[in-house]
Amino acid sequence: MSGGLVAVPAPAGQQTVRRHNRALVLGYVAEAEPVSRARVAEHTGLTRGTVSSLVDDLIAAGMLTELSAVRGATGRPASPLQLNRSGPAGLGLEIGVEHVGASVVDLSGTVRVSRRVASDHRDQPPDVGLGAAARLAADVVAGAGLPVAGACVALPGLVDAAGVLRRAPNLPRWDDVDAPERLSALLATPVRAANEADLAALAELWFGDVPADFVHVSADVGIGAGIVLGGALFRGPGGCAGELGHVVVEPGGPACSCGGAGCLERVAGLDALLRAAGASDVEALVAHPGPALAVAAGSLRIALGAAVSLLDVRTVVLGGVYARLGEDLREAVAAELATMTPPVDVRIADPATGGALRAAAASVVRALISG
Amino acid sequence: MSGGLVAVPAPAGQQTVRRHNRALVLGYVAEAEPVSRARVAEHTGLTRGTVSSLVDDLIAAGMLTELSAVRGATGRPASPLQLNRSGPAGLGLEIGVEHVGASVVDLSGTVRVSRRVASDHRDQPPDVGLGAAARLAADVVAGAGLPVAGACVALPGLVDAAGVLRRAPNLPRWDDVDAPERLSALLATPVRAANEADLAALAELWFGDVPADFVHVSADVGIGAGIVLGGALFRGPGGCAGELGHVVVEPGGPACSCGGAGCLERVAGLDALLRAAGASDVEALVAHPGPALAVAAGSLRIALGAAVSLLDVRTVVLGGVYARLGEDLREAVAAELATMTPPVDVRIADPATGGALRAAAASVVRALISG
Repeated sequence: MSGGLVAVPAPAGQQTVRRHNRALVLGYVAEAEPVSRARVAEHTGLTRGTVSSLVDDLIAAGMLTELSAVRGATGRPASPLQLNRSGPAGLGLEIGVEHVGASVVDLSGTVRVSRRVASDHRDQPPDVGLGAAARLAADVVAGAGLPVAGACVALPGLVDAAGVLRRAPNLPRWDDVDAPERLSALLATPVRAANEADLAALAELWFGDVPADFVHVSADVGIGAGIVLGGALFRGPGGCAGELGHVVVEPGGPACSCGGAGCLERVAGLDALLRAAGASDVEALVAHPGPALAVAAGSLRIALGAAVSLLDVRTVVLGGVYARLGEDLREAVAAELATMTPPVDVRIADPATGGALRAAAASVVRALISG
Repeated sequence: MSGGLVAVPAPAGQQTVRRHNRALVLGYVAEAEPVSRARVAEHTGLTRGTVSSLVDDLIAAGMLTELSAVRGATGRPASPLQLNRSGPAGLGLEIGVEHVGASVVDLSGTVRVSRRVASDHRDQPPDVGLGAAARLAADVVAGAGLPVAGACVALPGLVDAAGVLRRAPNLPRWDDVDAPERLSALLATPVRAANEADLAALAELWFGDVPADFVHVSADVGIGAGIVLGGALFRGPGGCAGELGHVVVEPGGPACSCGGAGCLERVAGLDALLRAAGASDVEALVAHPGPALAVAAGSLRIALGAAVSLLDVRTVVLGGVYARLGEDLREAVAAELATMTPPVDVRIADPATGGALRAAAASVVRALISG
């Protein structure tokens, strides 16, 4: 504790201050566009001179554009600023158990091109899925015609802080795959990775109409949940929170790839629901769910009931295959959870949010704006 | 957003500053006692004059005492400061389903007197338990001979932000009881209330040897959990997190007072374990648990597995009746959870922490020191 041992923070240099102010200006334009320079100065508390200098730089960097001058209340013409829809864009990728997706969003978060194609990765080495994702990405990037600043890939498993996919129970050959490194090489752009269920929850938070505390269930072959508390993603001490798919809903039930038995994703994941409905694909399941509805609702009562009891979150959002099953499933799950106090609000994910794929792409432009 | 609508914080007045500095001095003495005034000044960054003035006030208020002068390194005699063991004390109360407890801790958090007696409240109106707690409290306060500054009561149910017991499934006549108000009147001291399971987890955090992230299970007739994340209690958006007792571990199992069926506390709470073991009381259960061990371990695998999967917490601490079942139960639960990745560390609550009752009393003196 003697003076010499105490770390003294360096004074914030001019570059630090300028970067901070740049983020202030961009963040406010993103929130309030179209908006005048004068309004930006007023809101941020920066001088008009500082704002003008930063805005000139941001226009030169392709981040902002000026609209045609309009006559303001004072009678002086002003050129409102907005984020540049032709500026740096974000690329979102998704590698699922049976599909890949790619999407480009512009700086405003608007989806410009998005595609999703079937691609079976269940028993394949990682190169198959990574190659399919990279090829689809090249297509959508060419179609969007925007300069891509970076990418984020949604993966159906545990992604560590370095972006390595530690394990994905439904992709047994993908343990410890550094997807960002391999995709960066294929795409020649920086790539991050994140858990698909976490990104799907962020899509609801950023683009949907949800309260500040909720659990979003991502259901496909595997099942995960994104937990949002106080308007922020709750990732847990080790970054692996929300493994709803491995909550036991049928003690002594079928063995799960996680080592347990009777886990939600074995009892009410896509494969189990297809079997229960006697359906060969999702479209057939949705058309004639039959007993699959009761299987899903009964299992979700137990798994979501555990989440509500432990986390005290009172809104649950059903996504993925569960969202495809729609209002019938929502009503059945709500009926199962009706005994809980306080009551639980059960919703279907809003398809307009664009899901994990859009959130992956949007996370790239959000980082550009705040960084 | 115009200037006139922005709330401007008032400048910190001298009283605010003095209160803040008083807490700084007390907090450091609590952490480092016995400690010299010079060391307090050095650590807090306050001038020696300010420290001396604050310390004089704190001695006059009975919060600090000076030990006999010792000769320091500089040769000048110094009188080290410590928290006054005869100063303001905290009273802890506990009202369980079948017992009451009362405990007095001094300013250092040391238990001075503690008692626990059987008292059946299951089908009784609240006055029975409140009266029993107040009588026991009067006894321990008289025995401790310290001036009690306030009390905190641990309750086996959902306590809202105002301290009202909203509901306690195993105390059906206690809905919406304002225990703090009624105990304050009986004891003529300010009383707060908190959930028993939360306080039991804080006892491990404050007085035990646990990591910063863990779940502590409080098992009695009812079962609750206290969740600690990043070294702080996680109470959830509505203050009701950690309802582990109502995680379903036996779908279609026995009806629970919560409205559900097959909840952990119905399947592996004290009543169920007594039945499984054919025992008439806890002592008989602990002596010959028989099939109760497997019932508890199998149920805890499901409920604690759900907590680990959802929260990503890797340490679970077994308390209450589960702690009484000791190493045999710990080993059985650890074996059940052995398939989880990363591994889960299963522990028995440390009896030396003093549990919820001590934490309740300690919360009173911690508030005196920090407030």
